[in-house]
Amino acid sequence: MARRRGKGSLLSLAIRLSKPGADRGSGEAPLARQLYAAFRAAILEGRLGAGDRLPASRVLAADLGVSRNTALSAIDQLVSEGYLETRRGSGCYVARDLPDASPPDGRSTAPAFVEHPTAPAPVRLSRRGRGLVSTHISAAHAPGRWSPCFAPGLPDSSEFPFGLWARLLARSWRHPQADLVQGGDPAGHPELRRAIADHLRQARGVVCEADQVLVLSGIRQAVDLTCRLLLDPGDKVWLENPCYPGLRAAIAAAAVGIADVPVDGEGMMVTRGIAKAPRAKLACVAPSHQFPLGVVLSLQRRLQLLAWAREARAWILEDDYDSEFRYQGRPLAPLQSLDREGRVIYVGSLSKVLFPSLRVGYLVAPRALIADFRKARAAIDEHPPATPQPALAAFFAEGHLAAHVRRQRKRYAERQARLLDLAARHLAGRLELGADPAGLHLVARPVGALARVADIDVSRQLAAAGIVAPALSNYYVGKQRRDGLLLGYAAVPEAMMEPALKRMAEVLSR
Amino acid sequence: MARRRGKGSLLSLAIRLSKPGADRGSGEAPLARQLYAAFRAAILEGRLGAGDRLPASRVLAADLGVSRNTALSAIDQLVSEGYLETRRGSGCYVARDLPDASPPDGRSTAPAFVEHPTAPAPVRLSRRGRGLVSTHISAAHAPGRWSPCFAPGLPDSSEFPFGLWARLLARSWRHPQADLVQGGDPAGHPELRRAIADHLRQARGVVCEADQVLVLSGIRQAVDLTCRLLLDPGDKVWLENPCYPGLRAAIAAAAVGIADVPVDGEGMMVTRGIAKAPRAKLACVAPSHQFPLGVVLSLQRRLQLLAWAREARAWILEDDYDSEFRYQGRPLAPLQSLDREGRVIYVGSLSKVLFPSLRVGYLVAPRALIADFRKARAAIDEHPPATPQPALAAFFAEGHLAAHVRRQRKRYAERQARLLDLAARHLAGRLELGADPAGLHLVARPVGALARVADIDVSRQLAAAGIVAPALSNYYVGKQRRDGLLLGYAAVPEAMMEPALKRMAEVLSR
Repeated sequence: MARRRGKGSLLSLAIRLSKPGADRGSGEAPLARQLYAAFRAAILEGRLGAGDRLPASRVLAADLGVSRNTALSAIDQLVSEGYLETRRGSGCYVARDLPDASPPDGRSTAPAFVEHPTAPAPVRLSRRGRGLVSTHISAAHAPGRWSPCFAPGLPDSSEFPFGLWARLLARSWRHPQADLVQGGDPAGHPELRRAIADHLRQARGVVCEADQVLVLSGIRQAVDLTCRLLLDPGDKVWLENPCYPGLRAAIAAAAVGIADVPVDGEGMMVTRGIAKAPRAKLACVAPSHQFPLGVVLSLQRRLQLLAWAREARAWILEDDYDSEFRYQGRPLAPLQSLDREGRVIYVGSLSKVLFPSLRVGYLVAPRALIADFRKARAAIDEHPPATPQPALAAFFAEGHLAAHVRRQRKRYAERQARLLDLAARHLAGRLELGADPAGLHLVARPVGALARVADIDVSRQLAAAGIVAPALSNYYVGKQRRDGLLLGYAAVPEAMMEPALKRMAEVLSR
Repeated sequence: MARRRGKGSLLSLAIRLSKPGADRGSGEAPLARQLYAAFRAAILEGRLGAGDRLPASRVLAADLGVSRNTALSAIDQLVSEGYLETRRGSGCYVARDLPDASPPDGRSTAPAFVEHPTAPAPVRLSRRGRGLVSTHISAAHAPGRWSPCFAPGLPDSSEFPFGLWARLLARSWRHPQADLVQGGDPAGHPELRRAIADHLRQARGVVCEADQVLVLSGIRQAVDLTCRLLLDPGDKVWLENPCYPGLRAAIAAAAVGIADVPVDGEGMMVTRGIAKAPRAKLACVAPSHQFPLGVVLSLQRRLQLLAWAREARAWILEDDYDSEFRYQGRPLAPLQSLDREGRVIYVGSLSKVLFPSLRVGYLVAPRALIADFRKARAAIDEHPPATPQPALAAFFAEGHLAAHVRRQRKRYAERQARLLDLAARHLAGRLELGADPAGLHLVARPVGALARVADIDVSRQLAAAGIVAPALSNYYVGKQRRDGLLLGYAAVPEAMMEPALKRMAEVLSR
């Protein structure tokens, strides 16, 4: 009886083997795996009962039209996984102890594995998970006729020396030292940290040594690490309003509260921050070039901010996201260089300077926090990926970074001038643009009839025509918003700028 | 008077310029920067008062023994940063409005920037920050005479085809497509995701397509992302006891609670988990090869675990950290392939298979969670770094991964056999080792006199002699611990194995 039932089930199993004949040419392995899977499903779904005896492998093979080796291979696997058991001298049986697997809540008496629902589990995200998912920003620039006009924040990677990059990568990995291969330093490759420290000292006046530098994937990881190390859930962070949404997302993901601090012509309004959240634990600020407004934090505000941080025992995260792209004058010295107490955590990224998919950034920790930042980094995620690091160190040390930045700066300055010039010609009376001594985009102010339309609607119309120009008001939270359009120019090829602006003018004159 | 005071202060400034004569050969820039910094410090520290008039640049230059250009450059910067102000026709003054910068709390009437303490700020980490820092695991293998004997978990990277890796890197970056450069997909490079899905289906029987794969930096990032997306602070996670401390650190860093679940010869004791935390939201388990014990989760327990997850609406994180290194038999099919509800999140890493510093791993999301995982990944940290991804895709697709794994598997199997053989010869009566069909280390059980000594003390003695053999009891939490020593063999060169074991025997016979 057991044998008959077993055999009957085996025939139905056989049906599930897809084209055994056709597969046979490519070896036995796929067939054995199919046979294994079919057996397993039959056992789990109760079509083969506990204790059922299997026919001898020879019989089984003949029944199913497979070789005996194939049948044995499948049976071996099923035995080793516990679906089948062998009894000395009497062959192979479906395992008896499976049905006794007591269901966890003791409620049901049916074997747990027999009723196998195939409907997917209902998805319930955590509260913070829902927050995370809702802060997702979809990529603003879909490829198209007018791409990349005028996606903000996009550098021009077309002139990046990828040939050189490929050579540096190959050179650094052909015969790597053991310590490079084994990983190790949670702060990153020592040569790269040295190169970054040298660069920041010379180009930015940051007061730092290599041991203060942590190589990270970018500003978001820096914010995440800082918030987790120094802030508990419920603690407050000052955040500029408007600001880069990625920063807001990273802060929210760290489960801390955000106090939005308005920005005027002198940058973050420190007194408003003090009024709103005097006991905040961290202030996130982009003093050199606020995003998206482009304003510079005045000296008075810098000193105010530092004084507040001292009083409140708070930290300051200085986001110097685009310091390399300054076209006129020298940039202001970073806040970090004014800080004598070690309250400023300085962060930046290489992904805009080199190319966006690189995902390498850095954090300069105050001396007293170095050890803790290293340990926290190691606890969360060991150390930064090694692949790009030695090549980057060489890129810095051999002067390629400085040369590339020089070329890019010249190109972007020309493109900004061209955008201003062409916009004055084609968009006069609709949008007004002012020069910005730094950055990768300009903020256009709607004038005339356009000033009476919501910037979000204007942006939507342009998007429908294939032109990206995000609405400034989208970067704000709360009611106080300024209208405007962000026009990224850095990645726009010379030949495309005028046609794209003409197209914009057409759309805006409808 | 103002002038005299200005001049007097300037003389003291001059003292602070370090060896101006010596520096002059290397150009004027460093001198101008020194001058700028000295002025700034004098203003911030109140040695130059608000409204003080500066001497003419010519006089200043002569006083300080620098060129007029140097003096002008420093003054320009100070003016642009707001420390000095120029008045039409009457020269340059220390800015007047700085002293009026009202101190944030309205308490003090002294200008905020005058009292500039130079003592570092006291460091107060957050509660979770203290947790993070305390879970830090220091690297177990310092370089030395006996390195890498017997650091567990260390693969042998000496035979990795780095020449090939260098070529693949160079090939993939010499003329990259725009979409590779611009970044983009938060889940990772599409070709790599396809290659990983193919590999997992063929080598492991994971039921997945490329769109379910997320490229991450490793298992820790997978745990972090999963905990943040699906669990809130305070929710509970089942964790095997003993387990890999990095996993514990990553879970703790995500601010969720840990329910430690003991492990016996059949793996995680599911009924104990149910008794301890029936409403846990997640179970972290390494069913194929538990770390560090090496046991396999029995079929019965697998079914129990899946049934519990269904009842409790919980998720399972299946950590398949070393599935590639199995020396006997085929590995059990992953839990993920038994899961019809989509409750299992399957995670693995390439860093052991290729080389540790690579930091590339993956997560296979249940279909219903794909979109949420992508968004959460983007919100926290945009997308994985591009540099290694196309080269890895080629490494998989062109069959190099399979070939490398085959070679490594053979080498490691031989090394394990050698370790067993030599240990039986040199350590008999002190340590007993049993074979393990998988993994990179063996657990040695102290016998005889050694069984009466705490494994931590034995491990410490060995460490003092330069041999790494972590104590098994260190991987446990709570009182129920087993004593033992972990002996990693995979990275130990053939010639070193016997001398190192003899050295161990010497130390242990003291």
